[in-house]
Amino acid sequence: MFEAKIIKGEILKKAIEAIKDLIQEATLDCSENGISLQAMDTSHVSLVSLLLRSEGFETYRCDRNINLGLNVVSVSKILKCLGSNDSLTMKAADSNDTISFLIESSNESELSEFEIKLMDIEGDHLGIPDTEYKCIVKMPSAKLQKICKEMSQMGEAITITVAKDGVTFVSTGDIGNGKTTLHQNSSADKENEGVTIEMTEPVSMTYSLRYFNMFAKAAPLSPIVSLSLTENVPAVVEFLIDDIGYIRYYLAPKIEDDE
Amino acid sequence: MFEAKIIKGEILKKAIEAIKDLIQEATLDCSENGISLQAMDTSHVSLVSLLLRSEGFETYRCDRNINLGLNVVSVSKILKCLGSNDSLTMKAADSNDTISFLIESSNESELSEFEIKLMDIEGDHLGIPDTEYKCIVKMPSAKLQKICKEMSQMGEAITITVAKDGVTFVSTGDIGNGKTTLHQNSSADKENEGVTIEMTEPVSMTYSLRYFNMFAKAAPLSPIVSLSLTENVPAVVEFLIDDIGYIRYYLAPKIEDDE
Amino acid sequence: MFEAKIIKGEILKKAIEAIKDLIQEATLDCSENGISLQAMDTSHVSLVSLLLRSEGFETYRCDRNINLGLNVVSVSKILKCLGSNDSLTMKAADSNDTISFLIESSNESELSEFEIKLMDIEGDHLGIPDTEYKCIVKMPSAKLQKICKEMSQMGEAITITVAKDGVTFVSTGDIGNGKTTLHQNSSADKENEGVTIEMTEPVSMTYSLRYFNMFAKAAPLSPIVSLSLTENVPAVVEFLIDDIGYIRYYLAPKIEDDE
Repeated sequence: MFEAKIIKGEILKKAIEAIKDLIQEATLDCSENGISLQAMDTSHVSLVSLLLRSEGFETYRCDRNINLGLNVVSVSKILKCLGSNDSLTMKAADSNDTISFLIESSNESELSEFEIKLMDIEGDHLGIPDTEYKCIVKMPSAKLQKICKEMSQMGEAITITVAKDGVTFVSTGDIGNGKTTLHQNSSADKENEGVTIEMTEPVSMTYSLRYFNMFAKAAPLSPIVSLSLTENVPAVVEFLIDDIGYIRYYLAPKIEDDE
Repeated sequence: MFEAKIIKGEILKKAIEAIKDLIQEATLDCSENGISLQAMDTSHVSLVSLLLRSEGFETYRCDRNINLGLNVVSVSKILKCLGSNDSLTMKAADSNDTISFLIESSNESELSEFEIKLMDIEGDHLGIPDTEYKCIVKMPSAKLQKICKEMSQMGEAITITVAKDGVTFVSTGDIGNGKTTLHQNSSADKENEGVTIEMTEPVSMTYSLRYFNMFAKAAPLSPIVSLSLTENVPAVVEFLIDDIGYIRYYLAPKIEDDE
Repeated sequence: MFEAKIIKGEILKKAIEAIKDLIQEATLDCSENGISLQAMDTSHVSLVSLLLRSEGFETYRCDRNINLGLNVVSVSKILKCLGSNDSLTMKAADSNDTISFLIESSNESELSEFEIKLMDIEGDHLGIPDTEYKCIVKMPSAKLQKICKEMSQMGEAITITVAKDGVTFVSTGDIGNGKTTLHQNSSADKENEGVTIEMTEPVSMTYSLRYFNMFAKAAPLSPIVSLSLTENVPAVVEFLIDDIGYIRYYLAPKIEDDE
């Protein structure tokens, strides 16, 4: 028996929105510690990793480890029905091949229950090696989203260059080029608006803008995003989800020959 | 001579929006008592009936009964020009084959007049038998609209089951099924948010969701909708329009074999 | 060297939006007096003329006259990135074949620079003869936009008739006709909401609604638009841009045979 209730049901809605352009089928790995999901995108270029710890749920019960194979589009359709004050309960019986989503309005006058079939999904669990990154940039997630969208007007790749005093995003295409510079300002007026840089040495690497745009869709989950970069190693784009967990995207840089 | 002025011109705009997906041509039957419209939808599956009583108009004059055949799309285009504080006057001369719509802003600095040609529309006036319904559910119209939209994610039909303590909406499709339950709570905190059920015996019937979605477009006309249901008899979905009239939709339930 | 900085960068953004449906390539003529642009639309039916005087800029430097040929769509893409509080600096070196757009947020924490290639654009500078217009109508630009949109529901041409007490817009088409009358009311309650008419004699002329709709896209630049009309002479539709300049559209009336 697996049953987990989260008061802010919107968190799951936003998490599904943040992965549904990348992956169409996904397995929720449920254990007593929480729910995790790890999958390569459909084109096997990037990796997404989601964790929701059991402590973050209102109630959480997982009698034995269970893998729930989901059609992401179907789940997304269901969670579209979830309002900003609704709670969400997920339920799966051990013996059953369905999962139920219960959506409850805060005043409890309305209860919706959606039941969908589980899928058999084959997938290797990929080990992600621990890496010490040379640069970690923390910045407002809305700003990353805006910059990626703007740079998409110019080209298809984004070069991120991190130096002590700031981070620069550059994109070049047929009509010209665009460049945005953010200066480090940890003491910004408002919380969550600052840019902070931790680095051991400068890094400058180029990534696919298309993927960065898809990662930036997680911005509603967190006001802050952190970019962990090292040369010739996949970048990590991480959004912390309240105190319940995180969503992380891994994307290898473009090699010169690609461009 | 027919001439009728309504201060809240928006009522007519919303009424036209509420029928334009169902019917393309409609006859306004104007008499000294008011304006009525009754028509089968284009597929001859549902029936819509609109009444606007003469007392609800600012000024109303109808010298003799007159039937005004209208292209609903043309009228909809014209009424799109009507702002939320504009009044509307409809005018038709007995001898003429046009109808005029005068739109006046509340400060009277702007006056727009649209004249369109009347159409000859053949149509039988259908008698609607008086029926005692076994269940009458009153609920917020926005909630009906939301539920119909949500259920459309799952399937093409909606089963409405009314019992003493609540009403349940169920839809089943390929990816699974959805169910929403509303509990009776006549003493809801805010007016127009409660759900009330009057019933002599329980009813459970299945209807086309596509039509329910089209009926739900009348939600802007009224905060409350009432569903009158009896087994194997067309359901009535009614929205009262202020104190001027109503719009009612009739839809036969699906027979088992249909599904 | 040409370099011009404007604090309200949005003005340039709105100006580009106001011309981009009419012209795809445009030459900015920069001199010590300011920036001007004059071009026939792609179909050679209307003429647009834009002026931004050097005094309206925060800093302005133009060592020698320079013509900057721009792809309007590319510039529009770049300026989409400009927020409502961002300043804009345009830069072009004499020896270079590119123009740079620097977008700075008001708190200076973010700086974006876009560089695009200049184009060689051939074009004759058309002389616009000075004309004394028989009627000059000043009205809210939002109202002109609304009327043009409404009239487009009815027909493809708009007949503007100016008399002492008001101005009338008429459009006729297959489904009927529409007419909007605005009365002169210079003493309107709120500034920028009045309609004023200066005339030496009445005028009634017909114009292409399609073009009027494109001109009306300049409404965000100014709350007031002025229409200067004389029989059988191109109309002028003018929007003043703060105290920095103007955008003017010229459009010849339709001759009877055209209709």
